[in-house]
Amino acid sequence: MKPADTLTCVKAATDAVGDKWTPQLLRYFLLHTSLRFCQLQEYATGINPRTLSARLLELENKGLIEKVPSLSSRCEYRITDKGKSLQPIIEAMGVWSKAHK
Amino acid sequence: MKPADTLTCVKAATDAVGDKWTPQLLRYFLLHTSLRFCQLQEYATGINPRTLSARLLELENKGLIEKVPSLSSRCEYRITDKGKSLQPIIEAMGVWSKAHK
Repeated sequence: MKPADTLTCVKAATDAVGDKWTPQLLRYFLLHTSLRFCQLQEYATGINPRTLSARLLELENKGLIEKVPSLSSRCEYRITDKGKSLQPIIEAMGVWSKAHK
Repeated sequence: MKPADTLTCVKAATDAVGDKWTPQLLRYFLLHTSLRFCQLQEYATGINPRTLSARLLELENKGLIEKVPSLSSRCEYRITDKGKSLQPIIEAMGVWSKAHK
């Protein structure tokens, strides 16, 4: 079908976005300057708070989001440049979802 | 950041490709006319045979791959048109992976 060089290994991107919640969380981060835990919980309807904590920690450890320095005790996150570089994948997923919902 | 309408809901695509092995398996199906179980197992290094069986069944149930009618007893699969429509996502994941490996 397609020559191999136009469909290169997808491993790194799968490690970054290959689970049930991460594409959705990244989409929220791409749409907002910064987000608090409770806001994410509201957007990602049905997510378990422990799952959300685990996903945020993973995204932070992978350098895709970071904590916003703040004087308040509330923890706030924003997307990093590395996280923003995933936008073409999230956009392609949005296009497909719109056509197949 | 981005207006909401350019980053629409990614749920359907996440259901289709949002796990550890599926993007990789879809990539192999996009690259080959048809594939047998043992070939997939060889390509997807490290995949557990039970996991591979489960993923193939899921892909088949979602209409993304189908069994190739065959006279031999060996089960062979090929990608469907719906599966092929995921190619822009798999390509975007390949581009990102190449830049971030």
